[in-house]
This record gives sequence, structure tokens and C-alpha cells, in this order.
Amino acid sequence: MKKLQVYADRMSQPSRAVLILCKASGIDFEEIKVEISKKQQLSPEFEAINPFNKLPAIADGSFKLFESHAILIYIASAFPGVANHWYPADLTRRAKIHSVLDWHHLNLRQGAAPYVLHTVLAPVLGLPSNRQAQAEADKILTSSLSKIETIWLKGNGRYLLGSFQPSIADLSMVCEIMQLELLDEKDRNRILSPHKKVQQWIESTRNATKPHFDEVHNVLYKMKLKLSLQRSNQVDGMAESRIKTPLTSKM
Amino acid sequence: MKKLQVYADRMSQPSRAVLILCKASGIDFEEIKVEISKKQQLSPEFEAINPFNKLPAIADGSFKLFESHAILIYIASAFPGVANHWYPADLTRRAKIHSVLDWHHLNLRQGAAPYVLHTVLAPVLGLPSNRQAQAEADKILTSSLSKIETIWLKGNGRYLLGSFQPSIADLSMVCEIMQLELLDEKDRNRILSPHKKVQQWIESTRNATKPHFDEVHNVLYKMKLKLSLQRSNQVDGMAESRIKTPLTSKM
Repeated sequence: MKKLQVYADRMSQPSRAVLILCKASGIDFEEIKVEISKKQQLSPEFEAINPFNKLPAIADGSFKLFESHAILIYIASAFPGVANHWYPADLTRRAKIHSVLDWHHLNLRQGAAPYVLHTVLAPVLGLPSNRQAQAEADKILTSSLSKIETIWLKGNGRYLLGSFQPSIADLSMVCEIMQLELLDEKDRNRILSPHKKVQQWIESTRNATKPHFDEVHNVLYKMKLKLSLQRSNQVDGMAESRIKTPLTSKM
Repeated sequence: MKKLQVYADRMSQPSRAVLILCKASGIDFEEIKVEISKKQQLSPEFEAINPFNKLPAIADGSFKLFESHAILIYIASAFPGVANHWYPADLTRRAKIHSVLDWHHLNLRQGAAPYVLHTVLAPVLGLPSNRQAQAEADKILTSSLSKIETIWLKGNGRYLLGSFQPSIADLSMVCEIMQLELLDEKDRNRILSPHKKVQQWIESTRNATKPHFDEVHNVLYKMKLKLSLQRSNQVDGMAESRIKTPLTSKM
């Protein structure tokens, strides 16, 4: 049988979650790069895999699937190499994981993704930034992180739902939060520093999936550096242009 | 063991989906009414069931769960009375159902719920209506219904994914669309009439779960009548005030 094919863009947080699960579970799969910045997800070839033109998607033989949570569940269920803790067989533990995954959609994702988009990614992708959307996303993001800290990370374990080992819900939400790496360091600290448990949980998830976690996030780290250099050049540029501006122009 | 307890408000679309699945499957459960219009979901008693203060939620003995999709999956998995077609044991069919359920969150729900809120429910609940939010929701709703018609309802069956029997995904999305009953008839027709397959699918789902479907939706039908009477009174009131206005006032 043909290898599992994973259509992914490592700049997309749900793509990364799927890739890390596959790598951490030793699944023999083929990564097919679809670059959102080049609008490759709109190609007819990819549309045949996912008619909604969204990433990630998979093809397991003739079976095609999209929506990252559905993919994570499918991979954890269909591939015997995936350790039980990612998606436990026990009905009640599984139900709680579904609950976190469902919550993710209209909470953390609704905050983190548009905040990063309107703060740093829109200009890179040639899209308009929207201040109001940014402010609303900031509120949802902050509130979601508080809820993760006080509700989902309650308990003795290092992971969501008081668990001692990560599940697909940890992977999905941590990859979402990792997108904040693209922000200016000061802004990222403002958002994350009040949430110590969240920070520890990100580290625990990174450690539980190393070296794959950093390997898959490497594209993001490079983009972070690029954006940070652009910002410092802008600041230098501004300082320079201020010096160059003749004093008389102020009058 | 204690009966399954379902915390629900029948005015809430995901609450109705859970109630209909329980009733259609002959589950012996207790419905505990939590009225959102009276802010009962904010009570400490309910917060002990769902710290996010959202409906529906369930308690199965000491096991508590919220998020309607997670509840539907749990009930279909834990109660032997639930027919296989609601949540088939087959991995790939199950995966496709997860995919539809995940899609629901950031598409149909993002359209239907805020559209109904900003069009008719906000004044009833004492909340502000927002024209811009209404217009954005209208767009998402229209696009989501088109996608349901052309993508999810593709195939020979009457139900989503080309199936011949309904799944929990049909129930969840049909209950969402039923919320449009609250709209002015003309507006509801504008939205639904271009989508013949969607209309047939709603009817099929209603038929597959009768008499429970209409019984559970009865509260909604009553509210629809009430809102419609209010609207015609307003129109009468306007006509009356126009007659009473002396012609001279136009000058």
C-alpha cells in the first residue's frame, strides 16, 4: 500500500500538529508541501484532495481527509504505532479530549490566528490589516489563555485535563500558541508572561516530542528572525529618516 | 446508577441536537432546564457542571462533559441503544463525520448563530444589535449553505457525505439551520430557497427523528410565532402612526 500522504505548510499551525504526531509516532509518511504564501492550496490538484482549499489534508490510499482534529484522531486510531496517550481508548478520557478540541475552534483559534494575522502576517501575505479585528482577537486570545491556565491545565499533570502524558489536544493547542513566536518579543511577552502554567506546558509538549517539535517549527523560527530583522531595520530606518529630516521642516 | 442528566435550553441549537439523539435512541435520561434568557447558565450550580457556562452539558454519574459534538460522540459511543448510523464504528466513516463536525464550528455556526442573534434575538435578550456583524454573518451563512449543498450533500444519499441514514453531524447542522425559523419569513426564504438539497435534507432529518424533532423544536416554533406577531404589530403600529400624523407635519 502507498505511504500516508500529508499535505502541509509548516507555517500553518494545524499542519505542524499533524506532522509532529506522525514523526513522533514513527509513521512512514510522505510530506507534500503546499505553500499558502504561493496560493498553492487553490490549485486544482489540491482541490481534489480538499474542496475547501484548506491545510492540512491527508490521503491514505484512496481515502482523503481534511480538518486537522479529524486527521489527528484518524491517524491516532488507524496507525498502530501511535502511543495510546495521544488518543486514549478509554471512552471518558477520549470524550474529554474531544471537548478540548471542540473548545479550541471558537476560543484559542479565534484569538491566536487573527491576532497574528492582523499584527504581523497580513503585510507579508499582501492582505489588509484590520485594527478592530486585531483588538478583538487580542481579547479572545488573552481570555482563552486564562481559561487554559485555570480550567484546562488544572490538576497535577503537566498536560491538559491533568494528564501526565500529552494527547492530540495538547499538540493542537500548543502548535496554535507557537504561532505567537512571530510577534514582536515585547508583545509576545505581554501576552504569554502572565500564564506560567501555559509556558511550562508548551515546554513539556516540546520536550515530549523532541527533536521533531523544533524540527517542524524551524520554518516558523526562521520567519520569526526575518520579521524581527525587518522590524529592527524599520526602526533604524525611522531613526535615520528623522536625522535626515531638516529641522526647519518641523516649522 | 443514576440516569444520564442533560442540561439544556431548547432555544439553543446544540442543546436540541443532544436532546433529539437521546430521545430518538430511547435513552432514559433526565432533562435539566437551564434558561439562557434568565442567565441560569451563570449559576454556581451549573458552573460546577461546565466552568465555561455554556449549554448543553451532561452528567453521567460523576462524569461531566460539555461541548455538544463531544457529547453527541460520547452518547453514541457509551449507550448501546444508539443505532450505529449515528456514529458508525467504521474508522473512515467516523473520520468523515469528525471532519464535518469540525467544519461546522468555523463555518455554518459562525454564520447562522450571529446572524439570528443580530437580526432578531439581540433585542429579546437585551443585547446590542450590530449591523456590521450581521452583514458579515450573512455572508458566512450564505457561503456555508452553498458549500453544504455542493460539497457535503454531494452523492446519492439524502444525508451528509452521501449517506442513506443520518449521523450526529446531520443532527448538529440541521439543528443549527433550524434556528433560522426565528427570522422573518421573507428573510428566511431569501437565505434558504436557493438551496433545494439543504431544504430536502432538513426534511429528511426531521422525518428520521419524528416525532422527537418537532417536539424538541416546539419552543422555537412558539418563539417564531411570538416574534412574527411582534413584527406585524410593529408594522400595524407604524401604519397607524402614519395615518395619525397630520399631513402638515411633512412640511
